[in-house]
Amino acid sequence: MAKGLNLTMLTDFYELTMANGYFETDMANDIAYFDMFFRKIPDGGGFAIMAGLEQVIEYLNNLSFSDKDIEYLRGKGIFSEKFLEYLKGFKFTCDVWAVPEGTPIFPGEPLVTVRGPLMQAQFVETMILLLVNHQSLIATKANRIVRAAKGRGVMEFGTRRAHGASAAVLGSRAAYIGGCIGTACAISERDYGIMALGTMAHSWVQMFDDEYQAFKKYAEIYPNNCVLLVDTYNVLKSGVPNAIRIFKEMKPEKMGIRIDSGDVTYLTKRARAMLDEAGLQDCSIVVSNSLDEFIIRDVILEGACIDSFGVGERLITSKSEPVFGGVYKLSALEKDGEMIPKIKISENVEKITNPGFKAVYRLFDKDTNKVIADVITLDGEEIVEGKPYEIFDPQAVWKRKTIHNFYAKNLRVPIFKDGKCIYKSPNIDEIRTYCKEQIETLWDELLRFENPQIYYVDLSQKLWETKHKLIEEHQNF
Amino acid sequence: MAKGLNLTMLTDFYELTMANGYFETDMANDIAYFDMFFRKIPDGGGFAIMAGLEQVIEYLNNLSFSDKDIEYLRGKGIFSEKFLEYLKGFKFTCDVWAVPEGTPIFPGEPLVTVRGPLMQAQFVETMILLLVNHQSLIATKANRIVRAAKGRGVMEFGTRRAHGASAAVLGSRAAYIGGCIGTACAISERDYGIMALGTMAHSWVQMFDDEYQAFKKYAEIYPNNCVLLVDTYNVLKSGVPNAIRIFKEMKPEKMGIRIDSGDVTYLTKRARAMLDEAGLQDCSIVVSNSLDEFIIRDVILEGACIDSFGVGERLITSKSEPVFGGVYKLSALEKDGEMIPKIKISENVEKITNPGFKAVYRLFDKDTNKVIADVITLDGEEIVEGKPYEIFDPQAVWKRKTIHNFYAKNLRVPIFKDGKCIYKSPNIDEIRTYCKEQIETLWDELLRFENPQIYYVDLSQKLWETKHKLIEEHQNF
Repeated sequence: MAKGLNLTMLTDFYELTMANGYFETDMANDIAYFDMFFRKIPDGGGFAIMAGLEQVIEYLNNLSFSDKDIEYLRGKGIFSEKFLEYLKGFKFTCDVWAVPEGTPIFPGEPLVTVRGPLMQAQFVETMILLLVNHQSLIATKANRIVRAAKGRGVMEFGTRRAHGASAAVLGSRAAYIGGCIGTACAISERDYGIMALGTMAHSWVQMFDDEYQAFKKYAEIYPNNCVLLVDTYNVLKSGVPNAIRIFKEMKPEKMGIRIDSGDVTYLTKRARAMLDEAGLQDCSIVVSNSLDEFIIRDVILEGACIDSFGVGERLITSKSEPVFGGVYKLSALEKDGEMIPKIKISENVEKITNPGFKAVYRLFDKDTNKVIADVITLDGEEIVEGKPYEIFDPQAVWKRKTIHNFYAKNLRVPIFKDGKCIYKSPNIDEIRTYCKEQIETLWDELLRFENPQIYYVDLSQKLWETKHKLIEEHQNF
Repeated sequence: MAKGLNLTMLTDFYELTMANGYFETDMANDIAYFDMFFRKIPDGGGFAIMAGLEQVIEYLNNLSFSDKDIEYLRGKGIFSEKFLEYLKGFKFTCDVWAVPEGTPIFPGEPLVTVRGPLMQAQFVETMILLLVNHQSLIATKANRIVRAAKGRGVMEFGTRRAHGASAAVLGSRAAYIGGCIGTACAISERDYGIMALGTMAHSWVQMFDDEYQAFKKYAEIYPNNCVLLVDTYNVLKSGVPNAIRIFKEMKPEKMGIRIDSGDVTYLTKRARAMLDEAGLQDCSIVVSNSLDEFIIRDVILEGACIDSFGVGERLITSKSEPVFGGVYKLSALEKDGEMIPKIKISENVEKITNPGFKAVYRLFDKDTNKVIADVITLDGEEIVEGKPYEIFDPQAVWKRKTIHNFYAKNLRVPIFKDGKCIYKSPNIDEIRTYCKEQIETLWDELLRFENPQIYYVDLSQKLWETKHKLIEEHQNF
């Protein structure tokens, strides 16, 4: 949460037992490749959104074991002194590639790859998963909600229901990447530049002799941005009439009302009519009560008169599906300069991993700039622009299609080289804009909340062959 | 997450606009009371568990605005210089009462009450909610899972799926309070004394020429606690036979196998038979694949042979219900030494708040030490042991019952007096033991995972009358 925190010890304990184990077996410096990828898009959606990379970079930059950590580990009585001595001088020296934040992502794609000494590349598993899983979850959910709002602003209002401090702060960061316009959380603005918003709670209204006085005081103090909460007593009989009276008397620069309970469609239609009748067409209506993408879609379809939404618990916890199931798997080893691809077999075909050091290309139609498919290749394979390229379904290889008139984009960028960060994170607004632009390249059929088209994530012929050769070898084993 | 962090600015922005508003209207130092309570038990359970108080105390002890905070707030252009000057010297001076951690809690009960200058008592809303909501959610979920395991150990294994760093660390703390025996998360042991456990991932097994070698190396390095992951290739054909071979050859002090995939009931029965046949009755079986209270209950009913469970994402996110809906409401004001109870009316009867400064008593049967009912009273009311006491259903007042032979326990303790902490948090093991003991006082009917009996949370006659007088006044208004 707080920037600059050393989270080295925020790790599954088995990363430490394995690290010591590799140290003791002289395997610590074998060169290994690990891929982080996910298998299922939350909420049955058509795509997810990559987020959390900036915090991964920060984590890796701060990796080091303090004396307190060493002392704690020594107390466990299972680690060798030689190993503990090594940890004292631990330095992260791996290479890292990753998909930039804000990119639409699909199951099976290596989002982060770490190459380096086995012990290190294994050790960073827990935090890479934690950080990317969390923020990708929230960015993906936020984007669903933002799309449901059809251009109306969506504010992240969930701080009080977040799973702890970092869930609140980095959750609002991820929500902003996904398209929210701001947050209720002040520290997210101070530390991450995400606009923080908010005016009053019901208790403000209750503190005054009556609602009119409460609104009046507020408008006196905040004449520039006067959003009044109108549902403390009765929205239509008391809240809206008092707000109208204040707006006419005090003429605040920016006027709004917020409704936090009741039948949103009915109340906002009636409130809009009352405001318009009073000549207050400029007064905006904000709604904020247990919203999600489905409720927002429905009330808009019903003709609710809403200018913006404040979305709380269902966004900040991704309530309908609070888990982003990213995993981190060994994909290759280097031995004497030779690359040895590794596979993890499973009875469940979809759980078999893609072996080797890979790249991910996204192919776009040259005329429309819309996506055609993603192709996972082995490192070093080229997809030449202008040259016809055959893609095929890796589960049903007879389904083949040759595509022309496309351009290919390598989805991943180098992040660390020999433990040194060589990537500069874009600022949060650049990430948010990039995310929006990239989503515009997706087919409409991918944007459905339910039953979207399944996007093509194909394997190159070479990767497919490598994979199936390993599967065969395993079967003969 | 990290202890000692200043989270003052982790607040909904409206707490700041209201604070400045109260400052500007000379109401900042009016004495107000706020109650934190919740309305609905997650997962349709019979009770929840209070957790997060230690972090609330830490938060309140660290409350102060830094120069950076002031600078940020000044940049918003809406706060008066006088107010910002005041924030520089801000000192928390409120009184706080709370239900101790580990206590079974029920809807409507004031879990935390803050009394003090309006501006302060309002300001701390966001973080009190965030901290108590999060940890109570996880403690409650963990306890369901622990109860399903019927005495078998449950380890918290969810770090990688937690919503950020504090969700991982404080989540494992809450899970421990709820009855887990340990966590995968190393930093939770270093900082909170919760036993951290873990041995190997699939990648360890993949790194060696074969499974036998991988197990052998592990057993050499960790002869005291050798839990082998047996499902990398094939549990029954390869994993268990290799583990048996190692256990017989190496005779580690503590032996176990872990199964992380497949049909848990079938595999553990077969594995147990194979282990027993090899004379390895001491070898324990750990299972860890997408578990929750229902799956654990079912596999035990099916006769699965499991000694302990590792539970990940469904515990650390409380996946089936990831929101604990605690709220924070104004309940009273003091004016010229007189107590003025405040109420928040709602069309939904259950959402009407309980006014006034209150106490919560839990009544126990003297013979059985089982709970009878909780009674919320106004402060200062006495429930005299030995004297018959009439309780009644506050929604259906004709349902009355006089109880005898009981003793009453005041559920809440003073935490802060004039801004000074006067409470010493028990250590985490004391909290965990207290939680277990308190759950033993509950009726069996409250322990059901679904359709539990609804526990009685009654109001004293005096509080009921105060509440209904205010409701009537509001209706005439």
